Amino acid sequence: MQRLTIQTIKPREVVDITDLVNQEIKNNNLVNGFCILQAKHTTAALTTADLDPGTDLDMLDAYEAMVPKLHFRHPHDPKHAWSHIISSMIGTTLNLLVKDGVLDLGKWQRVVLIELDGPRDREVDALWLSV
Amino acid sequence: MQRLTIQTIKPREVVDITDLVNQEIKNNNLVNGFCILQAKHTTAALTTADLDPGTDLDMLDAYEAMVPKLHFRHPHDPKHAWSHIISSMIGTTLNLLVKDGVLDLGKWQRVVLIELDGPRDREVDALWLSV
Amino acid sequence: MQRLTIQTIKPREVVDITDLVNQEIKNNNLVNGFCILQAKHTTAALTTADLDPGTDLDMLDAYEAMVPKLHFRHPHDPKHAWSHIISSMIGTTLNLLVKDGVLDLGKWQRVVLIELDGPRDREVDALWLSV
Repeated sequence: MQRLTIQTIKPREVVDITDLVNQEIKNNNLVNGFCILQAKHTTAALTTADLDPGTDLDMLDAYEAMVPKLHFRHPHDPKHAWSHIISSMIGTTLNLLVKDGVLDLGKWQRVVLIELDGPRDREVDALWLSV
Repeated sequence: MQRLTIQTIKPREVVDITDLVNQEIKNNNLVNGFCILQAKHTTAALTTADLDPGTDLDMLDAYEAMVPKLHFRHPHDPKHAWSHIISSMIGTTLNLLVKDGVLDLGKWQRVVLIELDGPRDREVDALWLSV
Repeated sequence: MQRLTIQTIKPREVVDITDLVNQEIKNNNLVNGFCILQAKHTTAALTTADLDPGTDLDMLDAYEAMVPKLHFRHPHDPKHAWSHIISSMIGTTLNLLVKDGVLDLGKWQRVVLIELDGPRDREVDALWLSV
């Protein structure tokens, strides 16, 4: 298992981690198989996304606006209840195919960490398996 | 493959299944690798979440309020269309890393079954692989 | 790795790909294990769902209505920002259990491709592993 560390720099941010994961795949000599990624957090998430300019901010604005402004019970900071809710919906695990030594992504697909309560150091654990 | 059975007791509920999964990992002598979980339902979901007191109810209230009150076509009970919609968004499968004999979770991360149309007996099938 | 091609016929559509995946499992003589599916797109998604009549349209209407009508920055067509946002939330990868030669699904569970910006030819890459 490898640990990837991603330093986020903003409160909300979409971080493209595709190159970081591809570098680890190369370092580990994985050619064909899959890799499992797991973000170890409850206010961040992992997914795939298009990263046309501005799309990251569109996503973040939409995620935040989608969560209704209810009277949240969250004990420490009710204002960040939305970040837990979106993290649980998008999810923190990803299982990605690897082909010919790189992530098997579509033309516009990038692997992203969604920061919902930064800036922080975020940990993503990764496991690789040849198939 | 193992079948985990979870008896939910409320119409909507976030059930922490972390200990149950860790017990199965121990029973199966898995030390390092991953486990795949799949809830066999369309009105429940699996994800990871923070379970600070009240956070479970915040999540459930938000999920329900996020789904607009449209004129749903669902034949049996249009009132529970929202539970199908949230189940399909959160998802019913999880692929979790296992390290040193336990789930490799972050400090605040728990593995949860989201009950959206209970109470019911819910089945989660599990598969383990050493890596 | 196998490539599944799915021709969608509508702008928004829920396509049941369960039989297609089961056929590939049979062709590849997989009996027990799991299969990883990955849609290679940023305006489509993969998930499991109930397909009672009308449920597909309920889901699509809800997904579209859930995304707030913000002033999106998306450079080519801000009107389809919602399809990127929903694709990133539902996700494009699935890890499904296989038992006795078929997908290990619940009674009402189907494996679906969610088309959010069709019609198009959609590619889903698949990998199988015996366990």
